[in-house]
Amino acid sequence: MNRIAVDAMGGDLAPAETVRGAVAASSMGLEPILVGDQSAIANELARLEADLPVVHASQVIEMGEDPGQGLRDKPDSSISVCARMVAEGQAGAMISAGSTGAAMAAAAIIIGRSQGVARPTIASVFPTPGSPTVVLDSGANIEVKPEHLVQFAVMGAVLSEVLFGLEKPRVGLLNIGEEPGKGRQLDKDAFDLLAATSLNFVGNVEGRDLATDRADVIVSDGFTGNVFLKTTEGAAQTMAILMMEAFSQLEPEAQAAVLPALGEIRRRMDYETYGGAHLLGVNGVVVIAHGSSSHVAIANGIRIAHDGVARDLVGKVASRLAGA
Amino acid sequence: MNRIAVDAMGGDLAPAETVRGAVAASSMGLEPILVGDQSAIANELARLEADLPVVHASQVIEMGEDPGQGLRDKPDSSISVCARMVAEGQAGAMISAGSTGAAMAAAAIIIGRSQGVARPTIASVFPTPGSPTVVLDSGANIEVKPEHLVQFAVMGAVLSEVLFGLEKPRVGLLNIGEEPGKGRQLDKDAFDLLAATSLNFVGNVEGRDLATDRADVIVSDGFTGNVFLKTTEGAAQTMAILMMEAFSQLEPEAQAAVLPALGEIRRRMDYETYGGAHLLGVNGVVVIAHGSSSHVAIANGIRIAHDGVARDLVGKVASRLAGA
Repeated sequence: MNRIAVDAMGGDLAPAETVRGAVAASSMGLEPILVGDQSAIANELARLEADLPVVHASQVIEMGEDPGQGLRDKPDSSISVCARMVAEGQAGAMISAGSTGAAMAAAAIIIGRSQGVARPTIASVFPTPGSPTVVLDSGANIEVKPEHLVQFAVMGAVLSEVLFGLEKPRVGLLNIGEEPGKGRQLDKDAFDLLAATSLNFVGNVEGRDLATDRADVIVSDGFTGNVFLKTTEGAAQTMAILMMEAFSQLEPEAQAAVLPALGEIRRRMDYETYGGAHLLGVNGVVVIAHGSSSHVAIANGIRIAHDGVARDLVGKVASRLAGA
Repeated sequence: MNRIAVDAMGGDLAPAETVRGAVAASSMGLEPILVGDQSAIANELARLEADLPVVHASQVIEMGEDPGQGLRDKPDSSISVCARMVAEGQAGAMISAGSTGAAMAAAAIIIGRSQGVARPTIASVFPTPGSPTVVLDSGANIEVKPEHLVQFAVMGAVLSEVLFGLEKPRVGLLNIGEEPGKGRQLDKDAFDLLAATSLNFVGNVEGRDLATDRADVIVSDGFTGNVFLKTTEGAAQTMAILMMEAFSQLEPEAQAAVLPALGEIRRRMDYETYGGAHLLGVNGVVVIAHGSSSHVAIANGIRIAHDGVARDLVGKVASRLAGA
């Protein structure tokens, strides 16, 4: 079942960009199904002179809405319908650029947690000079126990294997120093538990290790992980602004000569290249795309959702957790 | 008392770079006093054909050493002597690039906390597209209470006023979303307390706000603040590596044309421009320089230490806290 349920209504640029992304994915041989308001989707498809399968959903859970309340009040929301399609086997995976909370709640309630998973977790992928780094939890679980961090680490390692083909991904604990014994009680306890697993645990890592490629998977609680995620965005954005200010001082010929290099940096730093984060620990592949996803991000998100299904991400997570 | 006690023995590049930095500061009209091994310092001064006042200290607390133990075992360490000079009025401020823990312990024990301060805090300065942003606590206090965050905010606001001349610096709480009610219980409680102060509190800010200039002061616990600090370093370093890789593909003439712009970015992003972090909440100006500080960072650190003394940073922190 390689069909991917695409929440056509979720995200700042939906449905225009979600539909356009799905059409692009389809032309790459993937199998998206668009879920949402039938006439709005039909309009977008007509504009693109494209044809894709559509499943109607009459409601939308908005960004500011309480996720649990939204799920109860709107059983025919696009996100609920996507989740039901995965739960009932009409799709192998789903992707949404809508409310992260609603996607998490729909996945947990409708698709269900994998056996043995205490807390589903959101894993983000970071561009680095080496192979991309998986960082989790990136915001699903604000306050956690040490044993949750161990499960996150196992799930993140499986994701790194599945997405990037790494054999024994190096797992690091996000901390404020490299030596053992650093950090909060949570981090000290998690360090000891991680060291006792069969994971390739490389110890504590710091934010500056993004550049030094010391770990393939970086694990932390959802508060710290989310700060980490958004701080890299802020720092990269700051660098980009300073770069633009500096380059605007150059002679026009120099600016023109430099443009290809800037484009290459942009492409490599761009979250859109990875298409979204993975919700791990539920009984289906769930990709959570950035709220401002363009069609490029959606198409890439459909691709990684497809990869997750084709490479049995869910089965591997479950069997690894059972063996951990 | 504008004399600045400089720990000549602290830091990866000491004493060569610390002495060289002090000589540079002296030539700018500042008044450093070098503290450490008299003959080692004399050698460096001779190499530079310079003359500066020296106070001998026969011991050094090493980076890995337990700070409290080091202070007890080595009463004649360079860091202890610096702190005693501030405590006894022979210097108005001190700067060290050695063990942060030892500098904090020496300041708290020998110089003493300011009245009413529950926890001294380390404040770092970040380059941003607008005026620099003060971030605290950047690692001194791993686990804190909401009322500590309020004191950090007050002290950070005073530092922003003193260093950058801002009148009503905007204070933000580092969080994982902009809306009130986000984050851990700590953050929710701190939000309510901050909103009730006379600070110019702008609410929650995120790491991505580094680029959007929403706050002049960003407050958090020392674990999160330290992750924030090191993640910006890692992200900036990652961008720099990607830039170098991309630019190395350009034609030689284009590379040469771009060099001045790269130098300008480097200068603006460089922590050395700010010379160090401030330890706030003790009865003296204490600047904690980066462990790998070059002479440029040391000279700038001596300058900001001088500014702190000349503009009565300590008195202003104490009076603001008393009035908060």
